[in-house]
Amino acid sequence: MTEFSQSAKGMRSSEIRRLMALAADPSIISFSGGMPANDLFPIDVLDKIYAGLSLKTKQIAMQYGPTAGYPPLLGSLKEYLRSRGLPLEGQELIITTGAQQAINLLCKVFLDPGDVVATENPSFIGALAAFMSYGARLRAAALDGDGIDAAGLKKILDQDSARVKMVYLNPFFQNPAGIIYSEARKKAALETLAGRGVVLLEDDPYSELYFDERDKPLTVPLKALASETVPICYVGSFAKIFGPGLRLGWLLGPREIVEKCELAKQSMDACSPTFTQVLAHEYLSQGKLAPFLASVRVTYARRARIMLDALSASMPEVVTWTRPKGGFYVWVTMPETIDATTVFNEAIKQRAAFVIGSAFDPYGKKNNCFRLAFSNTPEEKITEGIAIISSAIECFLP
Amino acid sequence: MTEFSQSAKGMRSSEIRRLMALAADPSIISFSGGMPANDLFPIDVLDKIYAGLSLKTKQIAMQYGPTAGYPPLLGSLKEYLRSRGLPLEGQELIITTGAQQAINLLCKVFLDPGDVVATENPSFIGALAAFMSYGARLRAAALDGDGIDAAGLKKILDQDSARVKMVYLNPFFQNPAGIIYSEARKKAALETLAGRGVVLLEDDPYSELYFDERDKPLTVPLKALASETVPICYVGSFAKIFGPGLRLGWLLGPREIVEKCELAKQSMDACSPTFTQVLAHEYLSQGKLAPFLASVRVTYARRARIMLDALSASMPEVVTWTRPKGGFYVWVTMPETIDATTVFNEAIKQRAAFVIGSAFDPYGKKNNCFRLAFSNTPEEKITEGIAIISSAIECFLP
Repeated sequence: MTEFSQSAKGMRSSEIRRLMALAADPSIISFSGGMPANDLFPIDVLDKIYAGLSLKTKQIAMQYGPTAGYPPLLGSLKEYLRSRGLPLEGQELIITTGAQQAINLLCKVFLDPGDVVATENPSFIGALAAFMSYGARLRAAALDGDGIDAAGLKKILDQDSARVKMVYLNPFFQNPAGIIYSEARKKAALETLAGRGVVLLEDDPYSELYFDERDKPLTVPLKALASETVPICYVGSFAKIFGPGLRLGWLLGPREIVEKCELAKQSMDACSPTFTQVLAHEYLSQGKLAPFLASVRVTYARRARIMLDALSASMPEVVTWTRPKGGFYVWVTMPETIDATTVFNEAIKQRAAFVIGSAFDPYGKKNNCFRLAFSNTPEEKITEGIAIISSAIECFLP
Repeated sequence: MTEFSQSAKGMRSSEIRRLMALAADPSIISFSGGMPANDLFPIDVLDKIYAGLSLKTKQIAMQYGPTAGYPPLLGSLKEYLRSRGLPLEGQELIITTGAQQAINLLCKVFLDPGDVVATENPSFIGALAAFMSYGARLRAAALDGDGIDAAGLKKILDQDSARVKMVYLNPFFQNPAGIIYSEARKKAALETLAGRGVVLLEDDPYSELYFDERDKPLTVPLKALASETVPICYVGSFAKIFGPGLRLGWLLGPREIVEKCELAKQSMDACSPTFTQVLAHEYLSQGKLAPFLASVRVTYARRARIMLDALSASMPEVVTWTRPKGGFYVWVTMPETIDATTVFNEAIKQRAAFVIGSAFDPYGKKNNCFRLAFSNTPEEKITEGIAIISSAIECFLP
C-alpha cells in the first residue's frame, strides 16, 4: 500500500467513520445506512430454502468451491442476467464476495499508482476507497438528474488519455444521488467511450428497485446496449435483492479481463462463501426473486414518498433535492455557504443523522450536500427526522 | 498488478490448475485436495444451529456487519483464542473472508514490489501466490522434520535486511510437509527474529487436528510464546474446524497492524459474510467445537495410518516421506533424478493423483517431491491409490 493511498484513504475514512459511529446510536433517527431494512429480508423464504436442502447439498455448502463460483449459481445467475438483456457470448461471469470485491479485483487488474479513474461527482464511497487504495488519482465529471455530463467525461478522457484506465459509473438509482440515467445520457456516455479501449465499470446494485413498472425500460444496463467498441465490466450484487450478509456479488465482462480477476481472486480469498452461494442459487432457481422484488418495490416507494413529502413540507426554500424513481437515496443540496458537517453536528444533537456530501466527492471537498437513505428508517420516524434536519439547516441560513 | 507478479503467478498457476483439473475427475483416486472430506462436516450440528436461530438473529445474519467482524463472534472467538494461550492484550482481532484474505491483507499493508518475504521451503501455495501477486520476491529456508532451518532464515534476514518485510511460517502440520515444529525450533525461529522489527505471519489452520492428545503441547502457537520483541500476526481459520464453505478466518495481531488491515478490508469486501459468522458464533458458543474435533481427530489419524502403512508396504526403498502427527498431509521425497510431474503423468493413467512438489517450492523449481493429502480420500481407496503411485515411481527408477 503506497503512502499516498494509505494516508488519503485513512484521513477521509476516519472522519466518515466518526460520523457514522454517531449515527449508529439506536436513539438516533438515522438516514445514514445504505442498506435494506432488517424487517424486509425474506426470512420465511430462507427458512424454506434451508429446510429443502439435501444432506449432500449441505455438505457441498460447507466445502471449498471453484474460485469462479458455485457452478449451479453461475447457471441460474446467467439465466437471470440473460433475462435482463445482458450479453453472455464472449463474456465470462464470476461470483465475487460482494460487489465491493468485484470493484477491488478490477482495480487489482487495471490500476497502478498514479493511474486515473474517471467517476461521476458525487460517486459511491466504497468504489472511491478501492480506487484510492491502489494509488489511483480520481477525476470526476458532474452528475445531474439525467446522468453524467458526457462533455465533462470526454474532457477527462482527452486530457489524461494515457493514464485513464477505468471509468466508473453507477447509472441506476445512483449512490448517493438517487438519479437514473436517461436513455440519451447512456448513449452519450457510450459514444464518448467508444473506441478508446478504456474499461467501463458499470456498477448496478439498485436497478431492480424501481418504484413504477413504467420506469423499468430505464433500467436496461449500458452493457446490454453497448456495441463492441466499449469493454464493459458489469458488476451486480445480491445485497439489495436478497441480503448483504450473504456477501455475494458478480462480475460479467470480457473473458480476458474476468480471467485475470479470477486469478487475482484466487489469492484474495480463494472462493466466495459456498454456503451462501447455495442459498442464492436456490433463491433464484426456485423463482423467489420476483415476488420479493414486487414486495420491496412497494415498500421502498412508500418510504421514498414519505421522505419526499416531508422534505417538501419542512425544508427551507433554498434547499433542493433529487426525486428518485427507485433505489435507496435522496441527495440534498444546500446553498454553497452551508457546510454539511456543521449541519450534521446540529442535527445529531436533536437525534437525526445522514451522510455528509464530501464523503462522496471524489476530490473530498464539496460539502454543501448530503445523502439521505430512506431504505432503513422506520416509516413513522421519517417525517420527524426530516423536520429535525430541516431545522438544523435553518440555523445556518442567512 | 505488476507485469512481474502477473506473469510469474500466471505461469505457475496455469500448470498447477491443469494438473488439479485432471485430479478432479471422480474416477481418480485423488490425494490432491487439501480439504476436509464432505462426509465429515457436522451437518447435524448445523441443522440444530439453524433451527435455534431467532427471527432477529436471522435478520442480522442477512445484513451488513462491521468490517472487523460480527461482534458476538469476535467475543466467542476471543474466548477460544484465550483458551489456546494466545495473548489478547494490546492486540486486535478481525474476522476475515477465509485465512487466505488475512494473508492477502497483510500483503496489502506490508508489501511493495521488490520486497522480500522469507518462507519455509516447501511452503503453502496459497500464501506464495498472494506474496507474488504483490510483486514480492520470495526467499526460502529449508524445512526439515522439526521446522525451519533457523540458520538459513538468519542468513536471509541478514543478507536482505532492508527488503525483508515479512516471514511466513506454517508451524503446525505444515502444508505441504505435514510436520510440526519442535519446541527448540520454535525458540530458534523466535530468537532469530527478535528485535528485527520484521513481522512474523504465523499461519495456523491445522493445529487442532493432532492425532494424539500427548502431542497437544506441541501445538502452542509461537504467538503464545513470543516475547514482545517479535510482532506476530497470527492467522487462523474455521475451514478445518467447521467448514471451508463458510469462508471465515481470522487475524490476531498488534493493534496498529490489524487496524490497517481492517481499513484495507473495507475496500476489499466491506465485511465477511454475516450469515456464516452467525453460524460460527453459535458453533463456538454452544460448545460444538470440542466434540467435533474429538471426532475428526480419530478419523484423520486413521486415514493417516492407512496411508503410512500403504507407503511402507509399496514404496521403493529410495523414497522417503514424513510421518505426520496431525493435519492433512504427507510429503514424499524421491531421488533427485525423478521428476514429480513425470510421475504424476504416469500415475494419472492408472487413476491416482497428488500435487507436484514444485507447486510448493518458493523458487518454483524443486520437483522430486510431492504432497499427498489423506483428509479427503475414501479410506478403502487409500491403499490402492498409494500402490498406483508407487508403481508409477518404479517406472522411473534406474
